[in-house]
Amino acid sequence: MKVLWNGSIMDRSESKVDIEDRGYQFGDGVYEVIRIYNGEMFAQKEHIDRLFNSANEIGIELAFEKKDLEQQFNELIQENQVSEGGIYFQISRGVAPRKHQYKKDIQPQTVGYTFSLKKPEEEQTNGVAAITAQDMRWLRCDIKSLNLLYNVMTKQKASEQGAFEAVLIRDGYVTEGTSSNIFAVKDGEVYTHPVNHLILNGITRRELLNIFENEHIPFEEKAITEEELGSVDELFMASTTAEVIPIITLDGKDVGSGKPGNVTRKVQEAFQKRIVPANIVKQ
Amino acid sequence: MKVLWNGSIMDRSESKVDIEDRGYQFGDGVYEVIRIYNGEMFAQKEHIDRLFNSANEIGIELAFEKKDLEQQFNELIQENQVSEGGIYFQISRGVAPRKHQYKKDIQPQTVGYTFSLKKPEEEQTNGVAAITAQDMRWLRCDIKSLNLLYNVMTKQKASEQGAFEAVLIRDGYVTEGTSSNIFAVKDGEVYTHPVNHLILNGITRRELLNIFENEHIPFEEKAITEEELGSVDELFMASTTAEVIPIITLDGKDVGSGKPGNVTRKVQEAFQKRIVPANIVKQ
Repeated sequence: MKVLWNGSIMDRSESKVDIEDRGYQFGDGVYEVIRIYNGEMFAQKEHIDRLFNSANEIGIELAFEKKDLEQQFNELIQENQVSEGGIYFQISRGVAPRKHQYKKDIQPQTVGYTFSLKKPEEEQTNGVAAITAQDMRWLRCDIKSLNLLYNVMTKQKASEQGAFEAVLIRDGYVTEGTSSNIFAVKDGEVYTHPVNHLILNGITRRELLNIFENEHIPFEEKAITEEELGSVDELFMASTTAEVIPIITLDGKDVGSGKPGNVTRKVQEAFQKRIVPANIVKQ
Repeated sequence: MKVLWNGSIMDRSESKVDIEDRGYQFGDGVYEVIRIYNGEMFAQKEHIDRLFNSANEIGIELAFEKKDLEQQFNELIQENQVSEGGIYFQISRGVAPRKHQYKKDIQPQTVGYTFSLKKPEEEQTNGVAAITAQDMRWLRCDIKSLNLLYNVMTKQKASEQGAFEAVLIRDGYVTEGTSSNIFAVKDGEVYTHPVNHLILNGITRRELLNIFENEHIPFEEKAITEEELGSVDELFMASTTAEVIPIITLDGKDVGSGKPGNVTRKVQEAFQKRIVPANIVKQ
């Protein structure tokens, strides 16, 4: 497999992370995952914009342009002949003797690679189980950073309980999932946490807000309480790799009817239509 | 320089971190820094115990024993002929295709290396400036993990303002520094945050609590408020590499007299005596 290592495409075996890379020692970096449908990136502009924004938020200055990055991604997809999959790309602050503070002239290290991915059709069709967990992450969840240990620990906890995702609760309010945004439906209206420092503003989340508008589905960007969560009609999660997946049980109890609901189905269908044009253009 | 890579001592140039090491992608790992005085490790038992404890807290199972690790550290110190310095050692969960959840049989990756370090004598003698900052870290600061981005951002902010450390405030209470524990002196009594999920239980902190007892310095493990912080007589920070350093200005204002105080001096002297025996044994 080929990877993109500091701007050059090379064999994966040639890439080498230094033991004093700040990404390795501090999680001092940011990342993105971009979906590839039929050989084409989906919403790459939004992902690349967010990547640059995350880097800026933590004070990493990038020496390359957004358009160059997009071009390199396309070259990588060509090299690896990826049809259905994704690109993972991360930027670390750079390599230096370990100290919390850093010098301004440090050279960021970047690595990107592609992966194949099957659409999670079974989960999308049948729905999944989720658990609830306390949201103990830092207070800058708006930055897509490499500090993901709590997400890892909580996703693992969910996984060990046979669940697909954990719905995080901070101070009594639902924030998001460990690697997804969470949407609740009550009396035909969709609720999701507003954009602030407590959640990542998901690219799929943004697509869904557009869909709600276009499809005339009432929605509000408002955090629901843990108590309200117990009586919602439908619940679903959204992310770049999951797309839209119904959550049909929560902590072992049925959500609504215990089956994917009508609003969720409508959103899923509209989202699938959104990602189809890329395929048509290509074929 | 020689490094300890997955249990073997080898040239630094031979060590190679994989791009899909979970330490690099999630900060999914833990670490320790052990001080070396005159070729001997200081408080290595406490550091190694804490390392194993941190690993256990995040569900990393280690295939080696504490005594083997201590022996390897000693071999590394010998190889690199370190007299005054430290050992950095980290454990990441391992290498696997990127997914938040992990398989139980994943092989942890470990890397250790030594570094030379001069005692920060000027800072210890003259004292340093600090700033205050909001503590926005996760709620498991008791785990010495690789998720250090907020510590990095805040230490950098301090550094850019000409300060040596940032004193973190959560919900109106002083927790700790970005890479140190914080101690305040008021009317002859020392206050420091109690051990819970909001701070790291520093090894130097523990040494100091012993010193307070032995030297009959009144102390209480009690968090002081941001308001109280503004009227303390003395303030000092403690860590493995800093040892004990007086903080003489905070956000540009003098702390107490604006000079290192008597209690701080007494604690510094007692701490220096504690680390001397290792030297005597060696010589």
